Amino acid sequence: MHRYSFHLAYDGSQYFGWQVQPGLPTIQAVAESVLSRIQKAPVRIVASGRTDAGVHALAQVAACDLTVSIPPENLQKAMNRLLPKDIRVMAVARVPASFHPRFHARAKTYRYRIFRGQVCPPFDRNYVWHFPYPLDEHKATNAVPLFVGRHCFRAFAAADERYTAEADMCREVFSASLQRQGDELSYVIRGSGFLKHMVRNIVGALVEVGVGNASADDLRQMLASGTRHVGIRTAPPGGLALMDVEYAPEAFLPQDISGI
Amino acid sequence: MHRYSFHLAYDGSQYFGWQVQPGLPTIQAVAESVLSRIQKAPVRIVASGRTDAGVHALAQVAACDLTVSIPPENLQKAMNRLLPKDIRVMAVARVPASFHPRFHARAKTYRYRIFRGQVCPPFDRNYVWHFPYPLDEHKATNAVPLFVGRHCFRAFAAADERYTAEADMCREVFSASLQRQGDELSYVIRGSGFLKHMVRNIVGALVEVGVGNASADDLRQMLASGTRHVGIRTAPPGGLALMDVEYAPEAFLPQDISGI
Repeated sequence: MHRYSFHLAYDGSQYFGWQVQPGLPTIQAVAESVLSRIQKAPVRIVASGRTDAGVHALAQVAACDLTVSIPPENLQKAMNRLLPKDIRVMAVARVPASFHPRFHARAKTYRYRIFRGQVCPPFDRNYVWHFPYPLDEHKATNAVPLFVGRHCFRAFAAADERYTAEADMCREVFSASLQRQGDELSYVIRGSGFLKHMVRNIVGALVEVGVGNASADDLRQMLASGTRHVGIRTAPPGGLALMDVEYAPEAFLPQDISGI
Repeated sequence: MHRYSFHLAYDGSQYFGWQVQPGLPTIQAVAESVLSRIQKAPVRIVASGRTDAGVHALAQVAACDLTVSIPPENLQKAMNRLLPKDIRVMAVARVPASFHPRFHARAKTYRYRIFRGQVCPPFDRNYVWHFPYPLDEHKATNAVPLFVGRHCFRAFAAADERYTAEADMCREVFSASLQRQGDELSYVIRGSGFLKHMVRNIVGALVEVGVGNASADDLRQMLASGTRHVGIRTAPPGGLALMDVEYAPEAFLPQDISGI
């Protein structure tokens, strides 16, 4: 067996997210079907994490095992020939059999784009949240640092996760910023890992603060209590993109454990 | 009757071009159906010129007559509410009944994007020509000024126009440039008007020069003779976008002639 890692970029607009779902087009299903054609036998691919329906990636990291040994650049070319143009393999590398794209990930960076102009340019329609309504951006920006640090993010997880008893909803946010660039508000968050809908709910919460539906104190309380006492919207998926997944160098050294 | 002008931006990927074609989705057909819903009676819309299937626009100019008088900003909002998100009305203005978006246009600017990297980012797939093959960009760039000035562009018109006897295939190119920006070659051309496929054929010709299939002298000869003695490809439509249409200020003054 030969393990390969991939950097994948995809436009998630036409997909029901990363994870295989019977009868629905997903990134994982398409990537696996292409790899299976190359190997002429079923192949499973594992990613650093799922992305939701409509969410994009500039550098998702994934890995698979192949029985055949193929030079990485040839594998990349073969995959890009077979993949639809909205999924691209940006890089391929041989990795030790112990490398695991999810377990070994140390940090992930997401970006969320909010378009503030009155008319959303047609070319950005699938890549931004069009929010032309009044918004106190200063207030929203001031609430950004609240989420930095180690917190229980239960109140910001998806509803179906929020009410489960999963022990550990603690995640560490290393940094976060919200910046105006022309007509766009760009939110970037880097952290140890993210719960389902967590980034979209944080963005939604910041917008509620900017709109005046919630205060910074409300958000502080939600982080402390783990319950949502104020309604917050989940920002739509199109504005979100996985920008980067980081690994410790040791992840690429041969080890005893086999992750996949 | 009240005449209105529009600045339209559209992602042409999903359309069979500007012009109405029975049974096919076109920008004009969609815009007319939306205006007809607003007026509750058929409306015809006239543009500065057609764009081909798959070609985009950042600022197409169009006009129509309405029996109802609507404040321009309300008309813009009503249209954007009814239009699909890949067509946007960026601006609306009241114009004199004499204003004609095609006859009064004095200059148009087009941009053509060529992506030179090995792997085309999924987000750009509909907006660039992915050309990762060897290309002498210096040679191609040197041929760019050949097309500037007043020329007969018959050899660079679409095949179905090229062999017709249309008297005037002379157009004036005011300026043109080809520039490298990162992995992208960006061609910008501004001229008095353009024949069908003219920009895509000029880009195709420049690429043939860069590839070594044609020389600058071949292009010079084609401009002089009006015949294509060397095959040139028509650059694919997705790379092309109409960027700007310019009018003399007089176009917006009331006149006696009624253009539409």
